[in-house]
Amino acid sequence: MGMIHRFNGSVNEYDWEQVVNKAYDQGDVVGATKKVLIGPEDGSDNFRLRYFRLEPGGHSRLEQHPHEHGVFMLHGRALVRHGEIVTELGPMDVIFIPGNEPHQLETVGDDPVGFLCVVPAH
Amino acid sequence: MGMIHRFNGSVNEYDWEQVVNKAYDQGDVVGATKKVLIGPEDGSDNFRLRYFRLEPGGHSRLEQHPHEHGVFMLHGRALVRHGEIVTELGPMDVIFIPGNEPHQLETVGDDPVGFLCVVPAH
Repeated sequence: MGMIHRFNGSVNEYDWEQVVNKAYDQGDVVGATKKVLIGPEDGSDNFRLRYFRLEPGGHSRLEQHPHEHGVFMLHGRALVRHGEIVTELGPMDVIFIPGNEPHQLETVGDDPVGFLCVVPAH
Repeated sequence: MGMIHRFNGSVNEYDWEQVVNKAYDQGDVVGATKKVLIGPEDGSDNFRLRYFRLEPGGHSRLEQHPHEHGVFMLHGRALVRHGEIVTELGPMDVIFIPGNEPHQLETVGDDPVGFLCVVPAH
């Protein structure tokens, strides 16, 4: 059966019905939260859709792993490190990060950053 | 290497650099276009991220297939048929449609509908 998560947040606090914050504060992370919009609890066998939020001055972990990422920026501006390159992205920009490429996002300016991130389930 | 598609559209015409419209006008479809934001040309092995736009009065195909869908609404309001249920969704609402569930989206009101749709690559 289709699983729906209605948006019930605001510009200041993105939130969805029946979606809770997941732990994302271990290791070298500053001011970041994670919500799983589509995941195993929805019955998804093949991919996950997550929302990440970085507070002003925050950044995600510098990660390198075999699985690929699809990132869709929702709000704010971020510096994205991918491989040896650093690129500034804004709302509705898209980046595909292939497996094994080091990557990290950090905020630019005074606004929080929010982005969708797709990963394969396995 | 990371592949970037910068948003270079507007509220009236969502568009991204190096992303072209894909055929999506066969069969029972009205006023619909499709853009592949992340796909095989970006090197994605596991999933696809697509943007669909329905003009006012338009609708997608009524489809039923083994692969699952993740849908993230970007703009406009749509009636989503999933299985025997019809639900109205708006911006930033999320729906997961499991494999083999019949599904279709149609516009509500006078605004075009835009949504992201994630599918597994295989």
